[in-house]
Order: sequence, then C-alpha cells, then structure tokens
Amino acid sequence: MPKRLNTTPRGDGYRMPGEFEPHRGCYLIWPQRPDNWRDGGKPAQHTFVKVAEAISRFEPVTMLVNEDQYDNARGLLPARVRVLECSSNDSWVRDCGATFVVNDAGDLRAVDWEFNAWGGLVDGLYFPWDKDDQIARKMSELEDVDSWRADGFVLEGGSIHVDGEGTLITTEECLLSPGRNPGLSRADIEAKLGEYLGVEKVIWLKNGIYLDETNGHVDNICNFVRPGEVLLAWTDDESDPQHAISAENLAILEAARDARGRKLTVHKLYTPAPILISQAESEGVDAVDGTLPRVEGDRLAASYVNFYTANDAIVLPVFDDPHDADAIALLESVFEGREVVPVFAREILLGGGNVHCITQQVPV
Amino acid sequence: MPKRLNTTPRGDGYRMPGEFEPHRGCYLIWPQRPDNWRDGGKPAQHTFVKVAEAISRFEPVTMLVNEDQYDNARGLLPARVRVLECSSNDSWVRDCGATFVVNDAGDLRAVDWEFNAWGGLVDGLYFPWDKDDQIARKMSELEDVDSWRADGFVLEGGSIHVDGEGTLITTEECLLSPGRNPGLSRADIEAKLGEYLGVEKVIWLKNGIYLDETNGHVDNICNFVRPGEVLLAWTDDESDPQHAISAENLAILEAARDARGRKLTVHKLYTPAPILISQAESEGVDAVDGTLPRVEGDRLAASYVNFYTANDAIVLPVFDDPHDADAIALLESVFEGREVVPVFAREILLGGGNVHCITQQVPV
Repeated sequence: MPKRLNTTPRGDGYRMPGEFEPHRGCYLIWPQRPDNWRDGGKPAQHTFVKVAEAISRFEPVTMLVNEDQYDNARGLLPARVRVLECSSNDSWVRDCGATFVVNDAGDLRAVDWEFNAWGGLVDGLYFPWDKDDQIARKMSELEDVDSWRADGFVLEGGSIHVDGEGTLITTEECLLSPGRNPGLSRADIEAKLGEYLGVEKVIWLKNGIYLDETNGHVDNICNFVRPGEVLLAWTDDESDPQHAISAENLAILEAARDARGRKLTVHKLYTPAPILISQAESEGVDAVDGTLPRVEGDRLAASYVNFYTANDAIVLPVFDDPHDADAIALLESVFEGREVVPVFAREILLGGGNVHCITQQVPV
Repeated sequence: MPKRLNTTPRGDGYRMPGEFEPHRGCYLIWPQRPDNWRDGGKPAQHTFVKVAEAISRFEPVTMLVNEDQYDNARGLLPARVRVLECSSNDSWVRDCGATFVVNDAGDLRAVDWEFNAWGGLVDGLYFPWDKDDQIARKMSELEDVDSWRADGFVLEGGSIHVDGEGTLITTEECLLSPGRNPGLSRADIEAKLGEYLGVEKVIWLKNGIYLDETNGHVDNICNFVRPGEVLLAWTDDESDPQHAISAENLAILEAARDARGRKLTVHKLYTPAPILISQAESEGVDAVDGTLPRVEGDRLAASYVNFYTANDAIVLPVFDDPHDADAIALLESVFEGREVVPVFAREILLGGGNVHCITQQVPV
C-alpha cells in the first residue's frame, strides 16, 4: 500500500543506481499527439513497438497508454509487453516519469519531480503538461512503492546521469535554464540533487547536443558506461557547431574527479552526419500554437549517446548513417557482455528525442 | 510478462478459491456515470471511499478510475489505497473484472469472461459496455499474470460463488437467461464452469432477490461461509414475494450435496424491510435512453448477503434498518475470528448492487 513520504531519499538512506545496474523492468509511454509526431503518430508508434520489442527480450516492459489508443497499442505490441492505461500529454517517460531509488536493503522507492514540459511558460515545448506531471506518482502506485514529491523542484530524468556511487553529470544549459528553477542557485540545485538522488558530486558540463530542444539534456551527449568511464558525443568536424560544444565538455570531463576521487575515462562516440527534417516529415505534423513546430530543413539533435542500457543489452538508436557501424562497434567494445541491439530511430528523433528519452528503468 | 493462454484453467490445474481463502488484495472501480448514480455520482463516491477504507484496513485495495475522475478519486481516497487509471463504463468490478484462479503451486492467473452489461441487447442495463469488457485483461496485466479469454461465454463474477473445493452455486434465472448464452444448454454451461473454474458440482438455485436487475445474481441471495455452510437471504413475511423465492431456494439447498458429497448447513439471513427509491433519489439520476431508469417508489434489491469477505473481516452493507443488528450478530457468529465492519450502503443499492458487487478479490 503505497505512501507519500515527507522525508527525503538521502535522509532515508536511498540512492539512485546507475542505469547499468540490474533492472526489474522498463516503462515507456505510447506516442500519439499529432502536433509532435507526424502522420498521426503512426510511424513513431511502429518505432516505439520496435524499441519495446527489443527491450522486452532482456527485461519486462510496461507501455503506458491513453485510453483512446489502448486498443491500437495492445494490438500492435507483443503480448509479453504489459499495456496499462495511464494518461499523458506526450511520450517522454524519461523526463516526466518517476526516478527510482533503492536502499542497501534492496527496497525500492520513487522520486516524483515537478515537470513543466522542458521550460514551462518560458520555453516549454507544449501546453498543458498536467497529465505528464502526474505520471511519476501513477508509476509509483503501479509499482506499489512509496514516493516523495519534490515540491518546488523542476527536473527531468534526461537531464541527469549517475554512476550509482555518488556522482552525477548534468549540463548548465539545462539545469541553470530560466524555465525550470530560476529561484535556485547552482548550490541550491546541487543540494536538491544530493537530497533526492543520494549523490555527493555533481559534474557540470556546459551545453548539450547542438539545437537540442530540451535545453541540452545530458542524456543526449554524455552517459556512464560504468563508474569512472563515460561516453561523450563527438565530431572532428570543426565547422560543425557540435565540435566546440563537445570539446568544451571533454575538457571538463578530463579535468574532473568523481565522488570517489577517480579521474574519468572518456570515449568519443561520433555523431551521425547532420540529419534534417524533410518536407514530408514537416508537413505531417499538425501546427498548434504553443507546440514547438517541426520546420523543413531544421537540423535534428541526433546522437548515439541516447541509448538505453538494459539488462545484458544496449538498445541503440541508429540512423542509416555510415557512423552507425562505428557506434555499434564502440558500444560492443566498452559494454562487453551486453548485446548491442540497433533500432532505426529516425521517427523518435523527429519527435525531439531518442531511445533513452522514451524509456525509464526500474532498478531491482 | 503476462501472456494470453490458449489452454483452460482446469487443463492447467487451476481452480477458483473460495472468497474466504486468503487474499493478496482487492479491486474496486470508481463510480461516476450520472445516468446510474444520483447527483453526479457524488454520494456514491463517498460510499465507495468508505468501502475502500474499510477493506484496506485488512488487505491492499486498488481503485480503478477513469482519467477524468483521477484527481477527485485520488484526493478523496486515503494514500494507502492505490488509485490506478483504467477506463470503465460503470463500477461493478465483481461482474466485469477478472476472476482469479490458483494452482497447487500457488501460481495466480486470471479468467477474462465475456461481459455484456447483464444481458446485452436483450435486457442489458446500459450501452455500450466496451470498456468494461476490457477490464479483466487490464487487471491481469496490472497483476502481471497470464490470462485466459473465455471466448463465446458470457458470465459475471456476481452470478457465481464457489467453495474452493469443487462446488459452485448459481441461479437459473441468471445463467439460463436469454441475454447471456442463449446457444448454450444447461449442460454446456456446467461444462464451461468446470473448465474455467475447476469445479465439479453446480448447485442451481432458481431465482435471485426479488426485482434484482442482474437477472438474479447469486451473490445477492446466497453465499458460502465455508465449504458445506451457506447463508441464504430470508424473510418470514409470506406476503413478500421474496418469501417464496427464498423458500424454493432453501428446499434446493437442503436437498443438495456438494462436490465432496456433504450436505449443506443453511443459515437464514433476514432481509431488511422493503427499501423504495425516494423522489429526490430518482430525480438525481440523468434519464438516458438505453440505461435502466431509477423510478420513484421502485423497490430496491436490498440484501445483507451482498457482503465482501476480506482477510480477517466481513464488510457488510447495512441500511439503517432494525434487521441490521441481527445481520451483524449472525455474521459475527458464523464467521468467528473475522471482524464485521458495517457500511451504510444505501447509495450502492441505489445504483443496482451492493458491497460484493463493487469488489473483486485477488487470492494469494
């Protein structure tokens, strides 16, 4: 019987595990809004099915779906994927969903952040976001675990990565953005992250992937392989604005020490060539005031770093690009023992994120 | 990862336990339709809260709610009651929900009957019933258990009671009604009950409570206390049509042998005095074509037999009637060791059922 708690995770001895630690399952949310996903969401839905199929080979998957898409989702997904009703404004469970934490006794609880669609009335991506903001609590009740509401603190799960041993990486572009917690200083934010995730050290990268509409979520540019070892999105092309962004972050990572005092090993994960929105892709999206438009010719924030680390596998977005093979090879090498499962993910990218953004693990 | 099965419960070694066997939890569905529940469902909602509060003292309770009532339900219910989204046409989880079965190894699975709102286009109580008919599968996915769909067989959980040792009681009025399985003979129906519930003996009562709109569900007139022992709704008033109905059933029960060859002990549970719909109660209900109207002066199908057997407790509907005290005393005596918790249940009765009809246990 789940409770809402008035304590904090750190106070109760909880920490967020690394994504590479064992999972008891994974959540996704079914995409459908026609002002974000082209052609009524149909191409994206088929890609979400592929992601769910891939992950469910390795761990239990639950798909949350609005009532009006239940029949379609249940029909398209394999029986082994649980399909549960849960209303949403869009399909980014990494960002609006619960962040699960554990204690040393193996108990599981959930953190329910405030969610404001990546910037609220300042530079949020759609309005309203009321259903999304309820999803974390609903997930905690589905998992039958107690939860904390992080009142007064806006955070998306995609803006943080942790090593499970006290270290968190994030970006200044996102966590210091004016649309999230303008009343909180950098020190205040570090204190909140410490209280809610049990971390002692925050490594602040500067900016995320070029033109990332989330204000530069870290999960599109840098991720942990394991404690002390990270992957960083990279390009050698100095004419690409991505180069300077990645180089600045590389310098920060090379100078950093983690919570245990370790220096970090950094692997460069090369980005695909620039991917632009086509005319057909743009025209397939409803124009709605208050929702970010999808304009023909705009460059998408494509990155291989936006993968999901499942039990015994990596589910990796690929783009039909010559760099796909290198990305697969690098991940197979650094994640030895995990199968790398590529999913052609252009449709997720068109919606503004990728595989990591549409998934949320539940640790064991 | 739940599956849909092509076998049958009997073939796989499953049986439905008696309701008096241990539970891991209980489901309810939030009431709201204004053409069945007076005053926008508000009085009924407060009564459902009381039922959920009562049961949740003894076992975990999950309340399923349509999206548009989520905030209200979550706000009115105590935190210890799980509130999950699940769309429905009305709130009778006993009848539209899953029937859970177990095997000797303690594994749990779900039976998903066809549901047609108590008679479909023949004499069903509302239209459509599409959301209700999906609830059993959704419950099986919420509990993360495999399920069977009983294709071609219409049944409501309230039309059966079992002793968990091979015996089922039902009524001819309901199971032989023209709106359910007109193509199936009595023998065909017994065979279906045997396959899906693991029972060997069906005891057929004739009719249910006078004017019961469900075509006489057994759960309003007769229930097991334990194997070999039942409670039967009763009145000594021979001018009440209920007397002849109950007397006919008493004769059947006294002549019956259960699956183990035992004779049954029958306890008479006296009904309250006739309860009629008031003018205000009638006027609070929307008139909608296709939904059973609530007419001032109509007699309601009130019975104390419609109680819920929880872990260590009986949640009993009471009616502010002189018979309340006798009902409480009888249940305390036959269910020794269980606390009898009375809930004033007129608002549930006004909607067409009572405590048992709005609950569905999940066995251990």
